[in-house]
Amino acid sequence: MNTVKTIKEVRHQVKVWKKEGYSVALVPTMGSLHSGHESLINRAAKENEKVVVSIFVNPIQFGKGEDLDSYPRDLHKDEIVCDSAGADLIFAPKADEMYYKDIEASVSVKELATGLCGAKRPNHFAGVCTVVSKLFNIIPADKAYFGEKDAQQLAIIKRMVRDLNFDIEIIGCPIVREKDGLAKSSRNMYLSSKEREAALILNKSLTKCRDALSNGEKSTKLLKKIIKSEIEKEVLARIDYIEIVDAFSLDVIDIACKPILVAIAIYIGKTRLIDNFIYEA
Amino acid sequence: MNTVKTIKEVRHQVKVWKKEGYSVALVPTMGSLHSGHESLINRAAKENEKVVVSIFVNPIQFGKGEDLDSYPRDLHKDEIVCDSAGADLIFAPKADEMYYKDIEASVSVKELATGLCGAKRPNHFAGVCTVVSKLFNIIPADKAYFGEKDAQQLAIIKRMVRDLNFDIEIIGCPIVREKDGLAKSSRNMYLSSKEREAALILNKSLTKCRDALSNGEKSTKLLKKIIKSEIEKEVLARIDYIEIVDAFSLDVIDIACKPILVAIAIYIGKTRLIDNFIYEA
Repeated sequence: MNTVKTIKEVRHQVKVWKKEGYSVALVPTMGSLHSGHESLINRAAKENEKVVVSIFVNPIQFGKGEDLDSYPRDLHKDEIVCDSAGADLIFAPKADEMYYKDIEASVSVKELATGLCGAKRPNHFAGVCTVVSKLFNIIPADKAYFGEKDAQQLAIIKRMVRDLNFDIEIIGCPIVREKDGLAKSSRNMYLSSKEREAALILNKSLTKCRDALSNGEKSTKLLKKIIKSEIEKEVLARIDYIEIVDAFSLDVIDIACKPILVAIAIYIGKTRLIDNFIYEA
Repeated sequence: MNTVKTIKEVRHQVKVWKKEGYSVALVPTMGSLHSGHESLINRAAKENEKVVVSIFVNPIQFGKGEDLDSYPRDLHKDEIVCDSAGADLIFAPKADEMYYKDIEASVSVKELATGLCGAKRPNHFAGVCTVVSKLFNIIPADKAYFGEKDAQQLAIIKRMVRDLNFDIEIIGCPIVREKDGLAKSSRNMYLSSKEREAALILNKSLTKCRDALSNGEKSTKLLKKIIKSEIEKEVLARIDYIEIVDAFSLDVIDIACKPILVAIAIYIGKTRLIDNFIYEA
């Protein structure tokens, strides 16, 4: 496995592979790889002959006051994870390799970016769409792998690929959890041991909601109430949002009667964590 | 030469060509092809083994009250032009092949779209960027050919390609003019014979400006004045804008001391015509 830092190098290698007839997968990441990413790379390696992992903490998807500077970075550790998970190439550019100072062009979505995490992160998903478009143009892969933990991101990227006719297949992969149920996240390492325990409330509250759905509850108002009262039991937790939306359009809905996305964002201390599940109502 | 109407067909044909090792050019047009377009196709055919011409009157780049409905369309005539100019394939989709009703994603530029034609056509260049991105994703060409007559469009597309890392080379081709100097345009056919004569004022006024530049005039204020007083001699002409800007950034400048774009938009009766030249000051 090799690591390259320039657009020219990664593009050249992928072109050579495509010319030789290999199928190529892209796994876009911001590094700080955990077993959630590992599962993406594993699956990509199973389904494709060559796997490129991009590692890039994308500055334009961070807002002011967010954790761009403190976001964990450890390329050496990431290289070990990528290698053992079956990656063939890492693309790890610096910010100035990816962005000119006088950048003008961007890619965005409209309604899909306004709710959920987009409500309080107004430029976040334009930043995501722009960098993912760039990666797709730099690395002409057959398939790209994204985690379902970032459910809104996944819905937006799928729509962007459809709307702009990117010639790539988007594969969503299930959330990977710790044994105790906490969804894997690079931001979990910000948690103190007390906060780490408190963070279990995310999965716990979603499980209560899923149980209620299984028992026939369809009112999203009531379902959200179930999540809310569960989370309020945890003193270290502060709710950012609890939403139940149409899984495709991300429109807020009153009655759970088609595939829905139940998504929450919770501050545990200063750390913002997200979790979700899709329910095929 | 063949005409296809679906994304699937054109993508398949271009992939076959690429696999066989052919170089492929794309000439994006809105049809109503004149000798300006012909010169693009000719050049594309000289520099590439296969040429695809897209013919699509892109609804999202027209504003309210603009000429979307009346824009001239004649596919049969266009096919004859393409064939004789050396095209290998026409991609002529209907609007519903290109756009879902619930389209969410778009591509745009910031500052480059705010002046010149963008000042009064606020969504025009986002419409252009979006459709051109789609065409680039549908038709993975090596080179794409655009006319220099749409100077702002060309500057924006070049910047978009740079910023989003599209793997395509953008070739700008010189303005083609009638013998009397009027720049070729599909909209020239809207002109009555009196208006046709009045329209000569565009090239005439630009020529005066170029002469002044050659004689050492550097004040853009004075240069614009020269154009303005020339145009005001023509009673059928109404000025939309007269601008002198940096040819790369499209920033308004006071002194012509590097490559500049001198661009004008003039109504002749109800028909809005544009013309320009680049001066390597």
